[in-house]
Amino acid sequence: MQRFIGEISHETGMRLNQTTAEKDGAILLVRADHGSESVGKVGEDESYELTVGTSNARLTAPNPLGILHGLQTFLQLIETGTDGFSAPVMTIKDKPRFAWRGLLVDPGRHFIPLDILERNIDGMAAVKMNVLHLHLSDNEGFRVESKRFPRLHEMGSDGLYYTQAEMRELVVYARDRGIRIMPEFDIPAHSRSWFVGYPELASTPGTYRIEPGGVDTVMDPTEERTYKFLDKFIAEMAKLFPDAYFHIGGDEVNGKSWDENAKIQAFMHSREIKNNQDLQAYFNQHLEKILSKHHKIMVGWDEVLRPDLPKNIVVQSWRGQQSLATAAQQGYTGILSFGYYLDLMWPAARHYAVDPMSGAASTLSPEEKNRILGGEACMWGEWISPENLDSRVWPRTAAIAERLWSPQETEDANSMYTRLDGLSWRLEWLGLTHRSHEISMLHRMAGEDDVTALHTLADVVEPVKDYTRIEGVKGDWDFRAPMNRLVDAANPESTTARHFQQLVDQYIQSKFQDRGAEAQIRTFLASWRGNDAKLRPILERSFLLREVTPLSEELSGLGASGLTALDYLEKSEAAPQQWRTQQLAQLDLANAPKADLLLTVVAPVRRLVEATATSTQ
Amino acid sequence: MQRFIGEISHETGMRLNQTTAEKDGAILLVRADHGSESVGKVGEDESYELTVGTSNARLTAPNPLGILHGLQTFLQLIETGTDGFSAPVMTIKDKPRFAWRGLLVDPGRHFIPLDILERNIDGMAAVKMNVLHLHLSDNEGFRVESKRFPRLHEMGSDGLYYTQAEMRELVVYARDRGIRIMPEFDIPAHSRSWFVGYPELASTPGTYRIEPGGVDTVMDPTEERTYKFLDKFIAEMAKLFPDAYFHIGGDEVNGKSWDENAKIQAFMHSREIKNNQDLQAYFNQHLEKILSKHHKIMVGWDEVLRPDLPKNIVVQSWRGQQSLATAAQQGYTGILSFGYYLDLMWPAARHYAVDPMSGAASTLSPEEKNRILGGEACMWGEWISPENLDSRVWPRTAAIAERLWSPQETEDANSMYTRLDGLSWRLEWLGLTHRSHEISMLHRMAGEDDVTALHTLADVVEPVKDYTRIEGVKGDWDFRAPMNRLVDAANPESTTARHFQQLVDQYIQSKFQDRGAEAQIRTFLASWRGNDAKLRPILERSFLLREVTPLSEELSGLGASGLTALDYLEKSEAAPQQWRTQQLAQLDLANAPKADLLLTVVAPVRRLVEATATSTQ
Repeated sequence: MQRFIGEISHETGMRLNQTTAEKDGAILLVRADHGSESVGKVGEDESYELTVGTSNARLTAPNPLGILHGLQTFLQLIETGTDGFSAPVMTIKDKPRFAWRGLLVDPGRHFIPLDILERNIDGMAAVKMNVLHLHLSDNEGFRVESKRFPRLHEMGSDGLYYTQAEMRELVVYARDRGIRIMPEFDIPAHSRSWFVGYPELASTPGTYRIEPGGVDTVMDPTEERTYKFLDKFIAEMAKLFPDAYFHIGGDEVNGKSWDENAKIQAFMHSREIKNNQDLQAYFNQHLEKILSKHHKIMVGWDEVLRPDLPKNIVVQSWRGQQSLATAAQQGYTGILSFGYYLDLMWPAARHYAVDPMSGAASTLSPEEKNRILGGEACMWGEWISPENLDSRVWPRTAAIAERLWSPQETEDANSMYTRLDGLSWRLEWLGLTHRSHEISMLHRMAGEDDVTALHTLADVVEPVKDYTRIEGVKGDWDFRAPMNRLVDAANPESTTARHFQQLVDQYIQSKFQDRGAEAQIRTFLASWRGNDAKLRPILERSFLLREVTPLSEELSGLGASGLTALDYLEKSEAAPQQWRTQQLAQLDLANAPKADLLLTVVAPVRRLVEATATSTQ
Repeated sequence: MQRFIGEISHETGMRLNQTTAEKDGAILLVRADHGSESVGKVGEDESYELTVGTSNARLTAPNPLGILHGLQTFLQLIETGTDGFSAPVMTIKDKPRFAWRGLLVDPGRHFIPLDILERNIDGMAAVKMNVLHLHLSDNEGFRVESKRFPRLHEMGSDGLYYTQAEMRELVVYARDRGIRIMPEFDIPAHSRSWFVGYPELASTPGTYRIEPGGVDTVMDPTEERTYKFLDKFIAEMAKLFPDAYFHIGGDEVNGKSWDENAKIQAFMHSREIKNNQDLQAYFNQHLEKILSKHHKIMVGWDEVLRPDLPKNIVVQSWRGQQSLATAAQQGYTGILSFGYYLDLMWPAARHYAVDPMSGAASTLSPEEKNRILGGEACMWGEWISPENLDSRVWPRTAAIAERLWSPQETEDANSMYTRLDGLSWRLEWLGLTHRSHEISMLHRMAGEDDVTALHTLADVVEPVKDYTRIEGVKGDWDFRAPMNRLVDAANPESTTARHFQQLVDQYIQSKFQDRGAEAQIRTFLASWRGNDAKLRPILERSFLLREVTPLSEELSGLGASGLTALDYLEKSEAAPQQWRTQQLAQLDLANAPKADLLLTVVAPVRRLVEATATSTQ
């Protein structure tokens, strides 16, 4: 209640009082039937009912989780108007469609300070998510203090890790906001950071360092000492993280180090273990027993799914919707992450179109469907820094959160974007920096005060999609690479490009008669046409920005092409074929990625140029 | 070192390694002769020597305080260039002029969350300040948990206070950055929040609530129970705050409640205490003994300065430089805050011009001058919220920090502003929000996405100066008043106005021949002239913004006047007397404050209009 009052005061400037007695005047009555569980459980009743009347409002829920959600809804209802702030009269009965609505953050690859995790938890609470999945170890770093095995964090990181006190603080912080924290320690692959301090765990003898490359190193599943170590380690972490679920990773096991180790090969032969998949299943069976002993339910990525594992494990599907459906058919519960990978830099609408119940899942029986618990947005950390994390997570995660909360039939992307645009500012008021981070990064790159022209360019570029950036790295991907280029500052989805695209659509649909849309298109195009001349001196002075020079030139070219096209369209004249051919050739060049960035307004300008093919007179 | 490496990576994107051995390649060697004191002391050696050579750099200091300062200097030296980042070759021997370089923050009136205090400590460290003075209680709130007297924070606040664990965390956080924390509990006046839970401490019997108004309530200095209470309370707080200094306030004692209390009058009569000043001195003598017993040195505002107090107390001067000089003459040490009140919304240059050794202090003997320990910027909290605190403190505090560190002779304001403009962005990178807060506040007021026009207006207004805003409040000042108006978002000092003023100066000095300056002036004026038409629909839709409508009209009027004046000046023609008279009358109207805001570009536009009086042909 105190946080809610704080937020509403923050938004409106009004000071509200909390009282336990009914009073005169406009009140919001809040009542929960029961208290909270001390540790959040999957499937708790999160429903609430909110009634806003003309003189007061009422929020009721079976337990405090519903109250938290209802208060967030109330905050979203507040509108600024001519007479002050108001909430519309209405009654909402609301509950989530899925019990598991998560966000994965990956401090393993790049450490994220605690306060940044906390503000992201605030963002999750605002969009009613309920699981923060922390990918706490990977090849590049081990990020939690282990008192039992201190060389894990001491040697397996660059000194950046969470203390146990900090993790306990975070668990409480999240719990206060209705959010569970599920830890992940990814084994047997993705585990080089373990081997720096404890090389005896590795399948390949040697000494290890935290360094780029080297994804071949995998734990040795044939040694009893591996399981003794994991038993003690999990005993410690099981106490630190009170949640019932414990994620062991299990993805992308590269069998190379098993193939090359004669002792491991002999072990497999003697036990009649046929292949590396079966060896990993052997590992997972041991692991599951250890987790059970410490009262934890095992969660793993797709690859853990093999016969003979107990049915109470949870499969997190990253490779496709089919594997989630298969798991459900075999009796396993599962959560969907395929389609929700934020690091692929997709637009919100593309994530929004993926539903855990669509695709392969749509033909499941009701009982099988019940095994699909929900989904998780995944913010993998290859290109993340504390400075740009928020901008990669938000606001796109809100679209996934809505997908997991609202009915499957709610699927109109335009309507989703309307809500997203409004929500994006509220998230910034909560302390997230997904909008404000860009300006200070641009200033740093430019090394000077006026970044208007650079901002104009940054506004219409997006990082390349899917795995293009990492595939473009020469040699091993270096997790120590600087994250101070324009690609690191640019938002994954350009709002300006979306608006420009809409204007062009509207203009073309009006058969080039909508003068309002035309004027706005002209304003955009003119600002782009003149931008390169303004930006060039800055680009020439900064080695960080020099790589974006071709993009700046091309944006100005796009502006010029578009304006000429508009002139033809306004006069209802066809443009000469030669001019058009030339423009389209330039647009093709502009369409290719440069400096790991894409110009996002090529397609709508192309539509304008193509429209000049026929006279409409 | 880890923080330094983090910051330098943040700025440059380079990953640096810390090592204890000498290595090949470019290195920064850091060496301190001694370790740190466990608790910071006034007058520790803060000097350092930094040498940047062509292939490596070296930082040495007697102790870690100097190292901290030297690392900050190194960070400031880094420049973005065409070939990467560099630091210029140079040798710096540096030390502060004053031992006490402080910032007062006032969570008493409006609570400031811990993380915001912490980021302000980061800012202080960046500008080499070394004292955070926390004004922890006032009429409006008691902000620290007291285990001995829990009704202090429980009933004396709205639930917003620092726990003892949080205060301990803050003390460590500050100490790690070379900053002492001095607590202030303001008594016997400014203490109504104490009386809510402990009314027996008040001079006027009754029940008390945290409510606006009512500055008359003062502690009862005639009762033994008052001192017993203070003894136990100070015993508790002396442990919580390890610093040797303890501030007891002592300012603005309104004697009304003493005058009206017959028992107090009888007490004064029986002890031959002649007036209220002497009664406060009696109180302070008792207080000083209690502080001494708990090994603390008493600090108080001007008003505590009375004969008979021991010479080891420190006087913080807010009423003028004379009282600081008087204290020094009488043998007391002192710190200057007069001239450094950030809440008066002065420009940085005005604070910068005030030196602790100038004015009355300039005639002191060397021995007396030695008693002036330094100064403190004071951020009183009447109009502060967590959202706008940073923007009131920064970057102006950096000018005061420089005043207290650098030689008295360093006093060129233009040169200071050049450094300030660069530093301002670095402070934002540290997590301060003095630049970024404005945009999200404007969005909230506007209730829509495009705030360009509102931003144009916000850029050229400043909050009214001195105590004008609080004097304009009808009735009692209500500390619960919303802080969501344009005056709460607008920066205390408009950078745009300063630049515009410089351009006009330059243009006039060139006898209207500088075409570059003229073009820039025209761009500003044209954007203002057209702004009201763009902004008006937003102002009409938002009740929060309606009050700024006259300012928006006037800004457009200024744009139009200025452009016409420029046309005359360009043609070297005198403008008609009647036109000029009309414009000057309008400028007078535009000069008056509205909505607690001032239009800052009236004066330069007036200069342009006045310049049209004579033909230069």
